[in-house]
Amino acid sequence: MRDVYHQQLDAISNQLVEMTRLVGSAMGRATTALLDADLGLAESVIAADDQVDLIYREIEAQAYELLARQQPVASDLRVIVTSLRMSSDLERMGDLAIHVAKVSRLRFPASAVPAQLRSTILEMGQVAERIVAKAGSVIASRDVPTALELEQDDDEMDRLHRTLFVIILDDSWQHGVEAAIDMTLLSRYYERFADHAVSVARRVVYLVTGEHVPQVASPGASVERLTGTG
Amino acid sequence: MRDVYHQQLDAISNQLVEMTRLVGSAMGRATTALLDADLGLAESVIAADDQVDLIYREIEAQAYELLARQQPVASDLRVIVTSLRMSSDLERMGDLAIHVAKVSRLRFPASAVPAQLRSTILEMGQVAERIVAKAGSVIASRDVPTALELEQDDDEMDRLHRTLFVIILDDSWQHGVEAAIDMTLLSRYYERFADHAVSVARRVVYLVTGEHVPQVASPGASVERLTGTG
Repeated sequence: MRDVYHQQLDAISNQLVEMTRLVGSAMGRATTALLDADLGLAESVIAADDQVDLIYREIEAQAYELLARQQPVASDLRVIVTSLRMSSDLERMGDLAIHVAKVSRLRFPASAVPAQLRSTILEMGQVAERIVAKAGSVIASRDVPTALELEQDDDEMDRLHRTLFVIILDDSWQHGVEAAIDMTLLSRYYERFADHAVSVARRVVYLVTGEHVPQVASPGASVERLTGTG
Repeated sequence: MRDVYHQQLDAISNQLVEMTRLVGSAMGRATTALLDADLGLAESVIAADDQVDLIYREIEAQAYELLARQQPVASDLRVIVTSLRMSSDLERMGDLAIHVAKVSRLRFPASAVPAQLRSTILEMGQVAERIVAKAGSVIASRDVPTALELEQDDDEMDRLHRTLFVIILDDSWQHGVEAAIDMTLLSRYYERFADHAVSVARRVVYLVTGEHVPQVASPGASVERLTGTG
C-alpha cells in the first residue's frame, strides 16, 4: 500500500487527468457550438470553465502543502513542480476553449464558420480532443514513447492551420475581412490548445527522465511562410 | 548582511528583472523592425531569445536546488514557486516578441503594417515596453499599488486592440485579407504580451500578500464584441 504522501501525489496526478478531460470536453463542445451556432452550448462551455479553475487552485494548494510538509527532493520534487506547470498549461487550454465558444456566441444566430471551412474546423476540434485525451493518458501512464507521439498529432494541427490559411488567402474567398479575422483567431486558438497539450506531454517526459525534450525545428515553420506565425 | 539562502533568492529576483529587460527590449526592437521593414533587426530579435531561454532554465535549476536543499516553508516557498511561474510568463513574452519579428521578416522588403495602422502599432509597442518595464520594477520593489497599476496599462493595450479592429473592419479598408490577417495576429501578440506582464504583476501581489488578485470582469469584453477575443 502506498503511503499517505504518495497517495497525495497520486491525487494530484488524478486531478491533472480530470483537467484534461474537462478541457477536452470543453473544446469539443465549443467546436460543436461553433459549427451548429448553438448559443446554449457556447454559454455552457463558458460557465463550465470555473470547474477547471477550481481544480487548478486545488492542485496549487496541495502542491504548496506537500512542498512545505514533506520537503521532497529529487524525483518527488520534480513531480510536484512539473504538476504545477502542467496545471498552468491545462488552465490555459480551458481559456482557449472559452475563446472558441465566445466567437460562436458573438456571431449567433449565424455560424461564424463559412461552409468551405466547416470540415477544417471540425477536424481541428477532433485533433484538439484527441491530443488532449492522449495527454491525459500520458499523465496517468507516464509512458515516454506515447508522450513523444503528441508531436505528430501537433503536426496534424499545423497542417490544418496551413490549409485554413490557404483557403482564406485564395482569390476565391468571398466572406470578407470579418470572417477572415474570425477564422484567423479561431485557428490560432486551436493551434495554441494543441501546443499546450504537447507541452504537457513534454513535461511528463521531463518528469520521468529528468531531461527536457529539445524543441524540434519550429513545427510552425511552413505556417510561418504563409502567415508569420510560428 | 543577508545569508547565502536569501542571497540566492535575491539572485533569482534579479534574473527575473533581467528577463523583463530582455523581453521588453526584444518587443521594442521587433516593433521597430516591423515599422521600418528592418530585416537585420528582426533577425537579431529572433536570435537574442536564446538568452531569455537560458535565464529561464537557470531560474528553474536554482529553484529546484533551493527547494531541495533549503526546504523552505511559508513565504520563502511562495517566493520560489511564484518565481517559477513568473519566469514562464516572461519566457512566453520572449516568444511573442519573436512572433512579431517573424511577421516583419515574412513581409520584407515591404512593411507588414499599412500606413493607416502605423501609429496604432507604434503605440502598442510603446505600451508593451512600458508595461514590462513596470513589471520589472514591481518584481524588484514588491510594491503592491504599482503592481495593481498594470491593470490600467493593460486597458490601454485593449483600447489599441479595439482601435485596430475598427480600422480593419471599416469599409474603407483597402489592404485586403492578407494584411488584415497579419494585423489581427500582430495585435493578438501585443495583447498577449501585455496580459503576461499583468500576470507577472499579479503574481508579485500574491507573493507579498498570499492572496490571489481576483480576475476583473473580462478586460477584453468590448474587444470581444468586435472580434470574439476576450
